[in-house]
Amino acid sequence: MLKLFHGPGSCSLAPLIALHETGAYFDLVVIDLKAGTQRDPEYLAINPKGRVPALATEHGVLTENPAILTYIAMRFPDANLAPLADPFAFARMQSFNAFIASTLQPGFGPIIRPEFYSDDEASFAALKRQALMNAAKNFDMIEQQLFKGPYVTGAQYTLADLNLFVFSEAIARLKLDASRYPQILGHRERISSRSAVKAALR
Amino acid sequence: MLKLFHGPGSCSLAPLIALHETGAYFDLVVIDLKAGTQRDPEYLAINPKGRVPALATEHGVLTENPAILTYIAMRFPDANLAPLADPFAFARMQSFNAFIASTLQPGFGPIIRPEFYSDDEASFAALKRQALMNAAKNFDMIEQQLFKGPYVTGAQYTLADLNLFVFSEAIARLKLDASRYPQILGHRERISSRSAVKAALR
Repeated sequence: MLKLFHGPGSCSLAPLIALHETGAYFDLVVIDLKAGTQRDPEYLAINPKGRVPALATEHGVLTENPAILTYIAMRFPDANLAPLADPFAFARMQSFNAFIASTLQPGFGPIIRPEFYSDDEASFAALKRQALMNAAKNFDMIEQQLFKGPYVTGAQYTLADLNLFVFSEAIARLKLDASRYPQILGHRERISSRSAVKAALR
Repeated sequence: MLKLFHGPGSCSLAPLIALHETGAYFDLVVIDLKAGTQRDPEYLAINPKGRVPALATEHGVLTENPAILTYIAMRFPDANLAPLADPFAFARMQSFNAFIASTLQPGFGPIIRPEFYSDDEASFAALKRQALMNAAKNFDMIEQQLFKGPYVTGAQYTLADLNLFVFSEAIARLKLDASRYPQILGHRERISSRSAVKAALR
């Protein structure tokens, strides 16, 4: 049976939603990120990166959100979470998830933990100011260019949708100008009513 | 026919090597990143992110390295660039490529363009110092934990190998301590002798 290591409030919400979408049974291990449980030796033996998510399978442990999401979609093809039979459509979905994982998410870093980016406390305000501006631009890119509608890649609900749902929470948290993101926030509201999302948030 | 938009000296070397590995014909468009060609209106119409790589296909344009690499492997399955029939092995490979795209590569940012991270020039030295330390730790993670040998994920040469080859160049460029990375640098030397790599670098 699959076992997901999830840190509430983190991006591991995405594979948690994906697993609920499949209807499969799985074990859930909650990692307390504020208490630093992700750096305990027991957890580092599972994921030496000291991060969530991690997914334990009968073949071994997987890490990194984009890889775990695709694995869930491939393992449970009946859940239709990815256009597995169409390489171009699959790549478009992967491209969206890659933008989130490699640009949007790392861009939040200096806001959440500036000490990871600089050992000079005097620089933290400038770091945060710039990161907030970059975050707004990255959401602009999604709103104006990447989002096709009604779902992220068009007509089909995919991994890209649950992924965007997880990350669009930052628009309110970072107090970005909500009026710039009608498509993203409308999407957020629609996705939040899915039963898999409600189950994951419980 | 596929058309790759490639910026010499950038991570678009990875899909360029992948295309050479397939033996397929493709068009190559060289984007002069130092001259800022990636921000020309003609290129922004192809990739609004103003980055390389982009891959034009008969279905549309793809962006983001991990997505483009997987697309090439799926489109040319005979080239055996990914374990397409084994979801777990495929996810392991994707996990490695995700670590490069979401952690290693963004971590170089403050070294290459600190002005993107802070509007205060006085903070640049601290930003670079910290980023160099993080880069060394990320290569440590690859050397000590992620690299299986003889190839990145074990016995098979995959997309993860050409991707590591492209990024391990940074060890010398950033003057990191080469003695810490015998596996990565040995791998680099072996991969550099592949004919597809030589063709891509020409």
